[in-house]
Order: sequence, then C-alpha cells, then structure tokens
Amino acid sequence: MVQLGPNRYGKAEVRVVHVARGVALGGGAVGDLVTDRNVSSSLSGDVAGCYLTGDNANVLATDTQKNTVYAFSKKLGHVEPERLARELAAHFVGTQAPITRARVSVEQYGWTRIEDRPNSFHRTGDCVRTTTVIHDETQGVSVVSGLRDLVVLNTTNSEFHGFPRDEFTTLAETTDRMLATSVEASWRYRAEAVQADDIDWADDFAQAKAALLATFAGTYSYSLQQTLFAIGSLIIESIPDICEVRLSMPNRHHFLVDLDPFGLANDNEVYYAADRPYGLIEGTVLADDAGPEGLAWT
Amino acid sequence: MVQLGPNRYGKAEVRVVHVARGVALGGGAVGDLVTDRNVSSSLSGDVAGCYLTGDNANVLATDTQKNTVYAFSKKLGHVEPERLARELAAHFVGTQAPITRARVSVEQYGWTRIEDRPNSFHRTGDCVRTTTVIHDETQGVSVVSGLRDLVVLNTTNSEFHGFPRDEFTTLAETTDRMLATSVEASWRYRAEAVQADDIDWADDFAQAKAALLATFAGTYSYSLQQTLFAIGSLIIESIPDICEVRLSMPNRHHFLVDLDPFGLANDNEVYYAADRPYGLIEGTVLADDAGPEGLAWT
Amino acid sequence: MVQLGPNRYGKAEVRVVHVARGVALGGGAVGDLVTDRNVSSSLSGDVAGCYLTGDNANVLATDTQKNTVYAFSKKLGHVEPERLARELAAHFVGTQAPITRARVSVEQYGWTRIEDRPNSFHRTGDCVRTTTVIHDETQGVSVVSGLRDLVVLNTTNSEFHGFPRDEFTTLAETTDRMLATSVEASWRYRAEAVQADDIDWADDFAQAKAALLATFAGTYSYSLQQTLFAIGSLIIESIPDICEVRLSMPNRHHFLVDLDPFGLANDNEVYYAADRPYGLIEGTVLADDAGPEGLAWT
Amino acid sequence: MVQLGPNRYGKAEVRVVHVARGVALGGGAVGDLVTDRNVSSSLSGDVAGCYLTGDNANVLATDTQKNTVYAFSKKLGHVEPERLARELAAHFVGTQAPITRARVSVEQYGWTRIEDRPNSFHRTGDCVRTTTVIHDETQGVSVVSGLRDLVVLNTTNSEFHGFPRDEFTTLAETTDRMLATSVEASWRYRAEAVQADDIDWADDFAQAKAALLATFAGTYSYSLQQTLFAIGSLIIESIPDICEVRLSMPNRHHFLVDLDPFGLANDNEVYYAADRPYGLIEGTVLADDAGPEGLAWT
Repeated sequence: MVQLGPNRYGKAEVRVVHVARGVALGGGAVGDLVTDRNVSSSLSGDVAGCYLTGDNANVLATDTQKNTVYAFSKKLGHVEPERLARELAAHFVGTQAPITRARVSVEQYGWTRIEDRPNSFHRTGDCVRTTTVIHDETQGVSVVSGLRDLVVLNTTNSEFHGFPRDEFTTLAETTDRMLATSVEASWRYRAEAVQADDIDWADDFAQAKAALLATFAGTYSYSLQQTLFAIGSLIIESIPDICEVRLSMPNRHHFLVDLDPFGLANDNEVYYAADRPYGLIEGTVLADDAGPEGLAWT
Repeated sequence: MVQLGPNRYGKAEVRVVHVARGVALGGGAVGDLVTDRNVSSSLSGDVAGCYLTGDNANVLATDTQKNTVYAFSKKLGHVEPERLARELAAHFVGTQAPITRARVSVEQYGWTRIEDRPNSFHRTGDCVRTTTVIHDETQGVSVVSGLRDLVVLNTTNSEFHGFPRDEFTTLAETTDRMLATSVEASWRYRAEAVQADDIDWADDFAQAKAALLATFAGTYSYSLQQTLFAIGSLIIESIPDICEVRLSMPNRHHFLVDLDPFGLANDNEVYYAADRPYGLIEGTVLADDAGPEGLAWT
Repeated sequence: MVQLGPNRYGKAEVRVVHVARGVALGGGAVGDLVTDRNVSSSLSGDVAGCYLTGDNANVLATDTQKNTVYAFSKKLGHVEPERLARELAAHFVGTQAPITRARVSVEQYGWTRIEDRPNSFHRTGDCVRTTTVIHDETQGVSVVSGLRDLVVLNTTNSEFHGFPRDEFTTLAETTDRMLATSVEASWRYRAEAVQADDIDWADDFAQAKAALLATFAGTYSYSLQQTLFAIGSLIIESIPDICEVRLSMPNRHHFLVDLDPFGLANDNEVYYAADRPYGLIEGTVLADDAGPEGLAWT
Repeated sequence: MVQLGPNRYGKAEVRVVHVARGVALGGGAVGDLVTDRNVSSSLSGDVAGCYLTGDNANVLATDTQKNTVYAFSKKLGHVEPERLARELAAHFVGTQAPITRARVSVEQYGWTRIEDRPNSFHRTGDCVRTTTVIHDETQGVSVVSGLRDLVVLNTTNSEFHGFPRDEFTTLAETTDRMLATSVEASWRYRAEAVQADDIDWADDFAQAKAALLATFAGTYSYSLQQTLFAIGSLIIESIPDICEVRLSMPNRHHFLVDLDPFGLANDNEVYYAADRPYGLIEGTVLADDAGPEGLAWT
C-alpha cells in the first residue's frame, strides 16, 4: 500500500513587470521606475483529495495564483520583492482555508537608467536578486533573501597547497593562482526581525552585496572555502537581522596555458577558462545565536 | 560571533565516456558499448580548518576527485551508474579519514546503436537517467535513482474543474484538455535492499520508466496531481525494493487558439504551446512501510 | 547621408501544436496524430516608410503573421512542414501588395506514440527537423529542408594525421580516435522540383536522415571533413530532387584520459568529453548540375 | 556526380583570458587589467583533398589554431579584440600557403573593477562586445565589430497603429506601449580605414554603444523599425570610419495585464513579459558612399 507524502503545487515563473510612473527622481526630475520580476508560488495543505481521486475542491488553480501575482503587483505598487512575496504568501494562507502553507519566491532583474532619461533603461545584468518567503499557518513566516550569478575574479592573492596526496592526486601545489567564482548567496532573517517586520530590505541587499564583493576582493585566500566563510561571516556581522548565510560557489577554473612549446614564457598572463568539470563549494555560516531554521530552506 | 554550519565540497560535472570494446552483442556479432556520464562528487567531514583558516590538510582536492572518477570508470568498466556511484562514495569515505560522508551523483545519457553497426551510435535524447548515492560513515548508504526530461503528452482524457473560485479566478472549467509535462522522477531504495546489494539497477530503471509511461498514458486525469500520484504508486507497487518516489511535473500548458475571429472552428485541433508561466506539481509517494529517509535526499 | 539597406521583419517562434483526431492508425485502430512546430515568418518589400518615418501602412503586423500561422495550421491540417511553410509564404506575398518576399521557417519536434495508445506520446528528442521556404515575387520559390542536433559517435574507424606542423603545432597524430559530432544538415531542392510541387517531403526526410546515419557509421574517416563530404554526397545521390547539401559539424572532442599516473592502462576505454573549444567543420556539397542558389540560403 | 562547394573549418570558442599585470591605473595606483575572450577561427583555401580523400596535408589542425590563439594572446598582450583578430587572420593566411582566407571572430566579456582594488573584478554583464575579421588573400581585409545582448526598454514614447488589417488581423492599435528589445548590432568599417589601420577600436565601440543607447532612449517611436533605422543612422553619422550597420532587434513584448476582472484599473502599470513568439526586426543602414560589402558578412 502507498500513501501521499509531502507535496506542493503552484505557478512558476510569472514574469511580471511593474512601472511606477511619474515618480520624483530628485533634482526636480520626474520619471518612471521599473521592477522586473519572475514570481513563483506554491501551496500545500488539505489537498490530498486531488492526488488521490482528482477532487479539486481545495485546489486554488495555478492560473488563479498567477492572477493574484498580477493583482498584488498592482495593489502594492513599487515595493521591495520581500514585501510582494510576503503579502502574497499571507494572502494564500489567509483566504484559502485548506491551504496551510504558501511559498513565494521572487527573482528580480536589475535595470539601469539610461543617462538622465525619465523613461529609458538598459538591463544591468551583473546579478539576479532573490527572495523566498514561506508562510506556514502553524510555524509562522520565514524570509530568505539573496542573489545569484554574481561572477567575481581575483587575478592573484590565492594559493592552494597542503592538501593530501593519495594515489589519484596529480595536482601541483600553487602559491599564486587566479580565483573566480559565480556566487549564489542566500541569507536567512531572524524570526523576530521577520515578525517585527520593519526590515529595510533594499538597504540590506545593498549592504550584503557590498560585503560580498569587498570580502571576495579583500581576502587573501588559501582555498575557496576560506573565502566562502569570510563572505558569510561579514554579511552576518554587518547586518544584525541576518542569522544565517548559505553560499554555493563553483570554482570557475582558469588554467595557465603552457606556452613553453612555442618558446614563450607564461608569467601568469594567459589563461584558459574551463567549463567543466568545476569545483563546487557549498557552505553555511551561522550566527552563534541563530534560531532554528524551521521551514525557511524548504 | 559566527560558526560554520553544514557544508560540502567536490568536483561537479566530470564528463566521462566509457567504451567497452569487443563485447558479444548476440547473434555472433561483436561490437562496442558506450556509457556516457556526467559525474559529480562532494565530500563532508572534518574540514572546518579549511573554511576557518585555509588549512587544506584534510581536503582531498577536487582535482583528485575528478581523477578518481576516471580511474574507477576504468577499473569498474561497463557497470550500471549506481555501481559506479556507490564504489566512488565508499572509496572517498573509506580512504580519507577526515571525510565522513560522500555524495556521488551520476547523469547518464542514452545512445542508440545505428542499425547493426558494431561501433556507431546516435544520441537517444528522450530522457536522462540519474542516480545519487550518499555514503555516510555513521548512517550508512542510501541510493536514489531516477530520470529527468521525459516529456509526455496526452491529447485527451484530461479534465480540470471543480476548483475553488475566488476574486482572482478567471479560469474556465474544462472537460477536455491536452495534458503535457516534462517528468523528473526519483525513487528511493529501501535501506535493506541497498545493504543486501543485489539490486538489478538496469531492470529497475527500465521497469520504472515503463510504469511511468504506461501510467501517464493510461490515467484518465482530473488533475496533474492525480496523474503524479498514479505514477508514483505504480512504480512502488511494481518494484518492491523501492519505498519512495518523488516527482516534479511542470504542467506544459497547451492552450487552444481562438480561431473565431477568422471564421474557423477550433475543435481541439490547434494549440499554442506556452513557455512561462507554468503549473508546477511536486509530490511524494511513499510505501506504507517506507523506512526513514535519512540523508537520502540531501 | 544614410540609406536603408536589406531588411525584413516578422514573427519568430510561434509554437503551434496540431492534433489530427480520429485518424485510422492501421490494424483497425483509431487515434490522434501530433505535429509540434516552431514557426517563424519574415517579410520584405515596400516597407521603407516604416523605417524612415514610422509609417506602418504597408506593414502587416507581426501579430497578424502569428494569427495566420494558427489559421493555416487549422486549414491545412496534418501536412508536412514544407507544405505549411510554402502556403504561408505564398499567402503573405499573394495578399499583401507591398510585400514582395516572404521567408517562412519551421522547426518540427518528434513525438513517439506510447505503446499502442491512441492519444499518448513521448517526445523523441533525437533531432529537430527543419525547413525554410522563401517565396519571392520575382525570383520564385525555394525550399531548403534539413535537421539539426543529431548527435552521432563512432568509437573507432577514425584517424587524424598527416597535417602540417608549424611552430604552434603540438597535436600528436593518431590512427585510432573517437569521432563524435552534432550534425546540422540542410538540403536545397532543385528549382524545377519545387515548381512541379509533387515532392514527397516526409519520405525525403526519412531517406536523408537514414543516409546521414549510415554514411557516418560506414565511413572510415581520416578527417571529419571527409565524413562531411561523404554524407552530403550520399544525400544528393539518393534523392534526385536535392541539388545541394550544407553541413555544419562541430567536432565533439573525446580525449583519452591519461591513467598512467594511477598505474592503469587506458586502452581506448575512458574518455573525457570536452565542451570548448571544439573543431567546427562547415561545408557544401553540390550536384554537378545544381542550379543557382538564388535566395535559398538568405 | 557531386562536387565540393564553399567550405571552412576551424576551432570555435577558445576561451582565453589575458591578465596584464602591474599596469599604472592612474593616481599612482598600480594593478591588473583583465581581458576575457571567446575566440573562433576558421580557414579556407586549397583543402579539397581533405574532403575528397582525407588528405590532411594542407589542413592546419584546429588544435594548432587554438594554440595560435593562446600564443598571440601572449605576444600581443593587452590589445583591442580587433587587433587580436586581425593579427591572427593575417598569420594564418600569411604562413600557410594553401590557406587563402581566414575568419577570426572574438566575443569579449566585460569586467568591472571592484572599488579601487588592483586585482579584483566582477563580471559586468550588460552586453557582449564582438568583432569579426576576414582576411582574404585576394580581396583583402574586412572588419565588422559590434555588440549583442544589450537589453533596453522604454516605458513610453512608443506607438503602433496605421498597419493594414486583413482577415487575420486582431491586434488593437495603440498610442502608448512599452518598447523593449535585446539589441544585436554589427558595424562594418570602410575598406580604406581598415587598410590605413589607425582606427581607435575602443573609442569607436564606446561611441557606438553610447549612440545606440541615446538613440533608443531619445526616439519617439511609431515602430521598432523606425528605432532601428535611427540607431543605425546615428552610429554611421557619429563614426566616419563606419559605412554600414546591421541590426537584429527582437521585440520583447510586454503586454498589459487585464486587471478588470479583479476590479482594478491597469493604467500602464502591470505588464506580462512574454517569451515567445516575438517580433523580430532585422535591417541594414548604409552610408550613401559605402563601398561593396565583399566578404565582410560571410
């Protein structure tokens, strides 16, 4: 005999763009603000009937979830992604009795104003901002924010040696290598801060991104793991409302090309950027007094 | 103050192709067999020093992990991916004292022999076979196998109605719709079967895939959730060694095109295949006597 | 002073799926047929006003082009992609006086019936079928059909040596290597065959694909170029209505892994499948009596 | 009988990263410069033997081409991509007697210095810079430079109406729409400028990109075609050495969401960003005195 285990369903990748029009831009200028998002929602609760017999009585349609994303984008206007995700999640749980948990995640794409034009923008492209809110009827609300696809590179100040050598080890030790990675970072907010709900999401994002860049650049690194821990630490130390940071950092290997056969020296000048395979470092940094993670990462 | 939380590191996407040469193909023919894989390994254990101070003494290099994948591919020869993953994971934990847990995942791509040629193949492309083995010094070994990117479509025998209607619901009910999805399925093996280690991995894969296709085709569906549960159920019921199935099934919406403006009827003939957004149904089916999942899905 | 040069505009990637319902499948069975396409159209002609002053009087909207694709998919029903492309192109040029040239290209994705089910399919995935029709008011109609993403591999019967060695050459000669490529092939039909318009498109496609596979498998190859020419030649020789074949064949390098450091021999067993860089061979094979290409490849 | 038609072969996507070390950065600071490129070369000439009989005597190996890219990256150091492409193309034709034509194309990815750090960078991501040089023994050298993936958006100042209405037209006219596109632009240099070879490639790129952004932002648009022509015109008018611009501009449709069912007005605030299908506008702008294009775009 079989039974239904954990499940959720929803609408993924609702690509909604909001324009706030006629906003004061400073210096007397008036113009538009653009918010470009990819919103995904998923719901859980008393929906077993749907799986077992095809009874949809408790299943708020994914099409309705999509519509709700659009409607809330209108109602809330130009707000931070965490606000949108939070209001949506609360709405689904609050208005659909069978739904006891909602997960709303948002990816946000950056746009940069073209010169001083009020209505014109180009896509920024340096990273994607993310947030995931989980609203559970019993366990409350969690918020995890972050970014992905932030590609960084140090041309020096990275070593790698002292690792164990077994029968399959051929890697030479190095005291000067290039270090590059595409950072995916997620930071969990403290439950009490989420409950108080007066977090400055935009400022936190800017601070965390700045801390990440500064730490990557400023860490003399003996391993990518060390850099990872330093980044997570500074984010937590800089932003009191954050109690945990998870980082996934693929090591984008840059190998020195052997130019000897051509009678040329390669004094750390010419590298080959490899695609696959790649090292992949995944780690968590926690404040000593971090509360339990609960559902935050589910 | 901060501390290091859960972490792992490894080499991702080692693209290794193995050729078994001169194999009896039946009917007196002799030829080659090709195994095309993407192998990723990651290790955990007593490696905090690396994160905290850059001490790599306990860190088996990811380059070494890559070499080990190649060497084991040679040593083991033409085996099922579960075998390769299992041997690799056991090797890392067994030979590196500080390493207490290894995770090895394999994607395997299908090749079809060109006619009766001994040495020639074309890529199959209908799905990717997967497996993930976790070997933990304390908690033992888990195996989760599966597939992804298996795209299926029913042209009829799917309805969707009876769902709740709130202020944001506009979707019409339907008693005849196209149903399409790209299936990602993972099945967990029972701990005792993993321990006994006499599973016929290839046969199980073939059976599970066949059950998946037959169930998708044979289920008159009132919701994609219902189809998901039926698929998971039949896999568990067909293969006694499997105790849990997790499925992720994006609803690849096909919308009827409105041809009325052109004076044409659309009697379920012409559809628009949408990209985004899409419904996403994720669910678990468990045998009633399934043991605890432990680390299997981490 | 500047002027407008060659230009075209249209609607790209109309994802239209057609279901032919209740078709006799043989053996007394009745079921559905699925045609899954991605259609792109573009138009040229007397549309300079649009570029120069924003005058859209002659610009059939791309939205209308999309609608036309849907309507013709309904009207034509279950036909070959060349037929759809041809009728669409003729329609645009024939009904819009300012439009003197139309280009319609179709990608078609394969579906395989699940067992003997009348309504159920899984995506085939071994290649994409393509066609491009250009209908020019003055120069007539051209048809180029083909396929892409057909990945093939020979485990042996490939050598590469005798190439020149300059100061930058380090590659060793080899008398036994793996040869793999992802084939993109396009074949141009003779103008007179296109005009006569009684080509069996489906049969030609099947023949060309079979010739491609058989030639790849059957050619003992001293270079990928040689294989390319053999493939093009056989397609032309097999199908009299085809006068030209263009092939683009990236060399998907499989490098032998050096297992010596591990005390293991690698007798052409374990390979590393590289991503980038890759060799890229592009060539044309022509029937001796091929007519001028005209606009076919534009 | 069949014959070999036009052909070329080469090495695609050599991912080479160059670091210029210890460069004066201004203000007394010293640091590194990073150049991140993807280089593809292809050669043509007296290589028919390779296709017809597998005779590689005239075929400079693609592996050698790759090595040459690395070696020239070292020799030339921190130069503009046009310089690298040009020197490589000249080298292949100049040193390999059977090779009569070389095509070298470069994609260059932007990196931004992290604050004032001498050795640290993050990937810019707003567009990719491109160049293609063709060096033909008989016809000389051509240079086409450009960019791709520059995504731009105007929140207003775009109308679309006055287009013809046939039986398949349903699109409503609009006097205020969002206009977004991902620009791919290529500009051809005048033959005499290429020959004189004192072009300031970096400055031209900066100017062309600035002209593109300013024109997109500053054009009140009645069609994307009009915007395209305005962009091409300003680039030509701004940079005397450029005689032709080709632009490919997919219309990234943003559709107003209908919020009426929810009792909400949508006063150009909430949009749905569609993926497919999309309008695609491709056009050429030429200086009145542009010379013949020759091989530049092949």
